[in-house]
Amino acid sequence: MWFMSDNTQPAAPEVVAALERANRGHAASYGADPIMARVTAALRVLFEAPGAEVQLVATGTAANALALACLAPPWGAVYCHGEAHVNSDECGAPEFYTAGAKLVPLDGDHGRIDPAALDAALAIGRGASVHNVQPAALSLTNATEAGTVYDPEALAALTARARSMGLPVHLDGARFANAVASLGCTPSELSWKAGVDVLTLGGTKDGCLAAEAVLFFDPVRARDFGFRRKRAGHLFSKHRFLAAQIEAWLEGGLWLDLAARANARAAALARGLAAIPGVTLAHPADANAVFARWPRGLHRAAMAAGAEYYLWDFDATLDGPDDEPLLARLVCGWSTTEDEVRQLIALVSGAA
Amino acid sequence: MWFMSDNTQPAAPEVVAALERANRGHAASYGADPIMARVTAALRVLFEAPGAEVQLVATGTAANALALACLAPPWGAVYCHGEAHVNSDECGAPEFYTAGAKLVPLDGDHGRIDPAALDAALAIGRGASVHNVQPAALSLTNATEAGTVYDPEALAALTARARSMGLPVHLDGARFANAVASLGCTPSELSWKAGVDVLTLGGTKDGCLAAEAVLFFDPVRARDFGFRRKRAGHLFSKHRFLAAQIEAWLEGGLWLDLAARANARAAALARGLAAIPGVTLAHPADANAVFARWPRGLHRAAMAAGAEYYLWDFDATLDGPDDEPLLARLVCGWSTTEDEVRQLIALVSGAA
Amino acid sequence: MWFMSDNTQPAAPEVVAALERANRGHAASYGADPIMARVTAALRVLFEAPGAEVQLVATGTAANALALACLAPPWGAVYCHGEAHVNSDECGAPEFYTAGAKLVPLDGDHGRIDPAALDAALAIGRGASVHNVQPAALSLTNATEAGTVYDPEALAALTARARSMGLPVHLDGARFANAVASLGCTPSELSWKAGVDVLTLGGTKDGCLAAEAVLFFDPVRARDFGFRRKRAGHLFSKHRFLAAQIEAWLEGGLWLDLAARANARAAALARGLAAIPGVTLAHPADANAVFARWPRGLHRAAMAAGAEYYLWDFDATLDGPDDEPLLARLVCGWSTTEDEVRQLIALVSGAA
Amino acid sequence: MWFMSDNTQPAAPEVVAALERANRGHAASYGADPIMARVTAALRVLFEAPGAEVQLVATGTAANALALACLAPPWGAVYCHGEAHVNSDECGAPEFYTAGAKLVPLDGDHGRIDPAALDAALAIGRGASVHNVQPAALSLTNATEAGTVYDPEALAALTARARSMGLPVHLDGARFANAVASLGCTPSELSWKAGVDVLTLGGTKDGCLAAEAVLFFDPVRARDFGFRRKRAGHLFSKHRFLAAQIEAWLEGGLWLDLAARANARAAALARGLAAIPGVTLAHPADANAVFARWPRGLHRAAMAAGAEYYLWDFDATLDGPDDEPLLARLVCGWSTTEDEVRQLIALVSGAA
Repeated sequence: MWFMSDNTQPAAPEVVAALERANRGHAASYGADPIMARVTAALRVLFEAPGAEVQLVATGTAANALALACLAPPWGAVYCHGEAHVNSDECGAPEFYTAGAKLVPLDGDHGRIDPAALDAALAIGRGASVHNVQPAALSLTNATEAGTVYDPEALAALTARARSMGLPVHLDGARFANAVASLGCTPSELSWKAGVDVLTLGGTKDGCLAAEAVLFFDPVRARDFGFRRKRAGHLFSKHRFLAAQIEAWLEGGLWLDLAARANARAAALARGLAAIPGVTLAHPADANAVFARWPRGLHRAAMAAGAEYYLWDFDATLDGPDDEPLLARLVCGWSTTEDEVRQLIALVSGAA
Repeated sequence: MWFMSDNTQPAAPEVVAALERANRGHAASYGADPIMARVTAALRVLFEAPGAEVQLVATGTAANALALACLAPPWGAVYCHGEAHVNSDECGAPEFYTAGAKLVPLDGDHGRIDPAALDAALAIGRGASVHNVQPAALSLTNATEAGTVYDPEALAALTARARSMGLPVHLDGARFANAVASLGCTPSELSWKAGVDVLTLGGTKDGCLAAEAVLFFDPVRARDFGFRRKRAGHLFSKHRFLAAQIEAWLEGGLWLDLAARANARAAALARGLAAIPGVTLAHPADANAVFARWPRGLHRAAMAAGAEYYLWDFDATLDGPDDEPLLARLVCGWSTTEDEVRQLIALVSGAA
Repeated sequence: MWFMSDNTQPAAPEVVAALERANRGHAASYGADPIMARVTAALRVLFEAPGAEVQLVATGTAANALALACLAPPWGAVYCHGEAHVNSDECGAPEFYTAGAKLVPLDGDHGRIDPAALDAALAIGRGASVHNVQPAALSLTNATEAGTVYDPEALAALTARARSMGLPVHLDGARFANAVASLGCTPSELSWKAGVDVLTLGGTKDGCLAAEAVLFFDPVRARDFGFRRKRAGHLFSKHRFLAAQIEAWLEGGLWLDLAARANARAAALARGLAAIPGVTLAHPADANAVFARWPRGLHRAAMAAGAEYYLWDFDATLDGPDDEPLLARLVCGWSTTEDEVRQLIALVSGAA
Repeated sequence: MWFMSDNTQPAAPEVVAALERANRGHAASYGADPIMARVTAALRVLFEAPGAEVQLVATGTAANALALACLAPPWGAVYCHGEAHVNSDECGAPEFYTAGAKLVPLDGDHGRIDPAALDAALAIGRGASVHNVQPAALSLTNATEAGTVYDPEALAALTARARSMGLPVHLDGARFANAVASLGCTPSELSWKAGVDVLTLGGTKDGCLAAEAVLFFDPVRARDFGFRRKRAGHLFSKHRFLAAQIEAWLEGGLWLDLAARANARAAALARGLAAIPGVTLAHPADANAVFARWPRGLHRAAMAAGAEYYLWDFDATLDGPDDEPLLARLVCGWSTTEDEVRQLIALVSGAA
């Protein structure tokens, strides 16, 4: 029963097979190979964005930080949710890549920025003088860190606020596939049509080994990307192995199939857990993660029986009174089985 | 009636005269002159800190940012009040100097960090892994941006929390003189005896032209200061002109006399305003600034009559209904006169 | 006939197969998986360095820049050959990662630093005051950018000079395997026994897809590595896929077999070319690259016949007089065939 | 006999007096005062550049580094003389301010860049790909670190090369006054008319306490200057004290009178020394510094008699054979007297 993270999942066999195919013979390095040309074309079609600039890197942190560095100067303010990965889980990568921009953490329930909180922050930003950091960008995450999604209207409500001040919008799409699969909308409806300027499209959590695409819907913003990527050591010499992953992942809609499978498992898990007396869901399980709270005693039993997941209160431990409720983060992936879901529900219900 | 800022004040005549004296003949450059040796000795005596490292720069932002860069690595978290100058008024200087550390803004009434807010932040920091910025330093401000002061006990309550996690403490003392004068304690009681490791001692707002001292009570922490200062262009070649200011400013307790004068004016102003019906003080006027709220109509009248000060609600303007209360920040300096105070009170009371 | 770069080569089939094996089931992320534990153990044995710290990243530029950032402060001077990859081919990565250290380029024939040039630079460094960057590290490359090698004595002659001033030594080992295979010495003899503190051991050019190890022989120097890597987005979540590459690459000495094969092809190519009248070798072909000069006319013919390689004079083109000699860089890899070598020799000799 | 540096000189009395005058009453802070408006107007007239952007800081290192940061991105190459102050004497300030740009050191006799060396470097830069730092700016120094000057034609020969590649030109004018006084040309002829885009105009070495102007002849290039200056802590709150220095320094051509006086002393010193058998001048004494070589024994005698200057060979000491020639750097300032010059000549001639 693995519910630790999307990162402990294997890659999809189709993606691994593509590496083997890509390995036949020589190929031009640094992205000049034919696979990359096909990936660029495919993503432009998929996003209905014929002019988009497409670049690949191997990690989500690199994708996010490089994207933000193309949007915010060192003296810029980047507005984001306080729990956003860029703010809380990247050891300061955006600050490193931007040479010191300031992330302004905003509140909002269920991992989604409260429009009023953004309004308040932008109002302060509007009054910025040379003494203050300058409003530079809005960074959103979809699906969010709380396993919820923004629908196109919710996205647009936030991006419109940013755009009214001339601020570009970054979308951390480490789990973009899960958001699209959850909402059933098109990729464009969840990105540029909703006001997103730069999307980091995550493959790693959704079946790749290590591959992320960065899409600049306005290619002018990508002007410095190449220098920043190279200078950061993120330009792969054997770049075809990044491109091959993304190509296989997009092929035939695999990316959405994998995400839909993960979402379905999470939905089943959320339903099963919510039906257990004493279990409460902390957030709607819109995508592939479930946040649920139940008594410590049953956590202890579940973990003893082999369930792997994180206690999400930052200082929670298995030591303490049995009946104290503790929050679990349970992440499903494409390879999570219905059996694993059933077993976990059984353990938490005390029926196992 | 100038209440805009300590920065619009002239320098004390004693300080200007010292420049003229320091200008006679040649002197060794870059701080190797005899005046600097005397300043170092004087500050060590004044702070009862014979081993302290003393360095001078010309601006408070430089002093703060250089000090923090000696305490926090690029992946460090610096805990500070959300309204702290380092967080809100230095255009990201700490981020620039630390190469990207993260300032973690904390809440607290009247410009003072709420110990519970610090506890909560440190608890999160205690759980930091390689994915998170690492707890690195606590930065306090005394007198605060709200014109209040921390007494030694209040300081110690916060610094003890930091020190229990091994974090060094920086004190932004742009208005340290006002705090000492307000509390009547010794400089050491408000600094190292209360758990402060590095103090930026501000002369500029208190009668200098442009001079700030940085005191490292543990000189080991100053190891890189010289390189950082030079590299930032803050090492003065004709360094004697910084030292001469500080020497004259300390001489005979001038620094405290000037601060006490400013504090007395602010106290009188606060008393006078508070006695006016419809005026409320937003914060205790412990030091040299008064934050008071009164109806827009009287602001309009006061400004028309020549009163100079800031409306402090970031988006407030003189346009609008007469009776809406607006917050004023009124800063007194060593040269503020009793007359100016009386005039302003009269204007606000509508008696002028 | 591919002689463009080691980077256009495919990965070794053994390495690709290892990815497939590593993909079975879940695994702990971020390097906590069992494959990484085995890689660490294997490298410690191979280098006779039981206490070495071992870390993996995906690119050589990242490996070099992260290693240097662990050795040099922002105000540090890093001594290196002017043609070193870190100085000339990484778009300023070391400057980015170190937050602005200065690379001091040194001369020397055939890609090897002239000890006298190092002496002269260190003598200047010895006199550094606060006005100057401070001597911080020596960075060497083996095999060099000119396709030559330092033997252990030549390495030690340079590292001893650095160590006498207390400077740590970085070795860019993007082609370390080629150097070891060329010299027939042990990995330890070409690294820590010769005075190297940190080695970046390159897998990518020698049969991996994208994998590099960083070995800190003194683990204390690695203290900040984890933060720097994460912050740079170089910590792979599915880290097992980096580890699996290195494991397979080391298994049974594959890494040296591949390098020896590449070296043998280069040696044959160098011999064949040198025997052609009008062809001169610019450098000894110690490793897997040949630098040779011959008339433009024959370059034109060779390229027309499908030979792929770089003209190495930075501004050379195929346009111009037939008889002007132009420098070619010809890189062999593990997959270069004897046939390709023979064909190229034939083309250049005009016999094709 | 002070010949150590322009930095050990006192400020001109006119400049100190201006501080006293500027200190009367309140003034708007951060450069919004009337003195600064007058300085801007005066410099625009003096340089025949009505659209120039004028900004002040307190140190030459800050002026240079801020200027370069406005011209070069982090991945930029800045071409300069190897002995330029920005390259050799600022502890890496340009690297800090640009977030890691690379200074490319060029050769040239007497502190002046050899046009052929610039051509060679630019040719390499012309071939830059994403793997290389990108040509970004040319930085010149006039008067040079060797006490020589570029005349307008020599300047233009270099700037034209840069401009042909679209590179902007920075001029470090720490001793610009000495260059103008030496050549008898106008400020515009030595700056924008000769192809300079940004000039750092030094007051500190020529009679100010601490004041430097940065002139952007194309104000578009100054767009980020304000943020960079504030963020670096170089925006003075009591900015009028910077402006007052520059105003007094310009008033009635004082800046040129002071420089001419220093130049005249240096010329007399050079003539006197050159006439002594066994003394050789290392460089023409075009400005206010003399570089001369004479036997160690006479250095020992001169210093024993109170002459203050630097031995300029970086590792030279007074210990050693009497007859070995050692290089002296002898800097004259506005306050250097004819007597001091005569005394030193007498000491070196052995006649004292």
